[in-house]
Amino acid sequence: MAKQERAVRTREALIRAAAESFDQDGFTVASLTRISSRAGVSSGALHFHFASKAALADAVEEAAATALRTVAPDTGHLGTSRLQHLVDATHRLAEALRDDVVLRAGFELSGEAAREPHTDLRMSWRDRVERQARRCEESGELREGVTVGRVVSAVVAATVGFEVLGVRDRAWLAPGTVTEFWRLLLPTLASDAVAARVRPEGSFRSAGRR
Amino acid sequence: MAKQERAVRTREALIRAAAESFDQDGFTVASLTRISSRAGVSSGALHFHFASKAALADAVEEAAATALRTVAPDTGHLGTSRLQHLVDATHRLAEALRDDVVLRAGFELSGEAAREPHTDLRMSWRDRVERQARRCEESGELREGVTVGRVVSAVVAATVGFEVLGVRDRAWLAPGTVTEFWRLLLPTLASDAVAARVRPEGSFRSAGRR
Repeated sequence: MAKQERAVRTREALIRAAAESFDQDGFTVASLTRISSRAGVSSGALHFHFASKAALADAVEEAAATALRTVAPDTGHLGTSRLQHLVDATHRLAEALRDDVVLRAGFELSGEAAREPHTDLRMSWRDRVERQARRCEESGELREGVTVGRVVSAVVAATVGFEVLGVRDRAWLAPGTVTEFWRLLLPTLASDAVAARVRPEGSFRSAGRR
Repeated sequence: MAKQERAVRTREALIRAAAESFDQDGFTVASLTRISSRAGVSSGALHFHFASKAALADAVEEAAATALRTVAPDTGHLGTSRLQHLVDATHRLAEALRDDVVLRAGFELSGEAAREPHTDLRMSWRDRVERQARRCEESGELREGVTVGRVVSAVVAATVGFEVLGVRDRAWLAPGTVTEFWRLLLPTLASDAVAARVRPEGSFRSAGRR
């Protein structure tokens, strides 16, 4: 393995180990010794890549932001409604928060009192929801009288609630929980033109995961 | 001032000071020295009342649970619909999370990774919402096909989301945010018999706060 490739792998292992420690113990309690041993590298190697625990947290947030862009891409697939795209993004976010410790730790760092976030994941998610809700409005998929702000506020609050509650009980991030939320919301949110077409369980359920 | 009365006041001051420290710095960073000086008592007095920081956190949660019972009482006022009672409880919760540092710190301790909650405020709130949603169902105030579980999940997730996001930006706890959420939810949630009667802004808005 080339030297540079090894350095990239070590860096990735450290970010993952840091995410696991932050997720399990919280940012303040997590120790650099524990993180380097978890990653299987020396503490010298850790300090070569990251000057401090705060620098590691910044890197976890950055990696989580990259994961979020994959989970909730800004452009929709052809043939899907804009609103369906938003529904799908919330399902994929819940799934990724269950399975991807880096994304989960990135979101948790958002609420860490001891530290100002470098990349605030909850706010990045809010911005993505807002852009998507605007597209829904532009394409006439929102029911008359429903504002973008109202959609953003309800969807972001509920998904952040699922995320936070899901830390202690994964059932809050189950596909059924997200589906039930959309079943309740879609009838007042979607215009008649799309209401019947948008699937609260996500467009990818029976056709296999994307 | 009698000795016993002074002891009660000191205990209350310590709980409040601890809540302020937990809210500001998080449980792990908060220091007992800082808490006793914030409360204006000696560190000996602190240790007379509380054996450890964990014991102080337990006491903050207990005081927050008492505050929650006032904010969201289990019995409704005569003449109000059950659903209105639930809407009102979410408004009073948001208001109390803005104004009452003990309640806010109690909720935040719920999500503290470094500590298992003694009284889990978010779960106490969930239980209250569930009892109220059951009453709505029993009195026929839920629209046909809407389950108690669906109501609990959406309302708890959104309010916990408002709580968590409100730590960094109080606008998430503004009356307007909660009202907009109910405007979106009520049409699919309420049966025809009560839909027109339930006020998303809370029943106490124009008639003065209760």
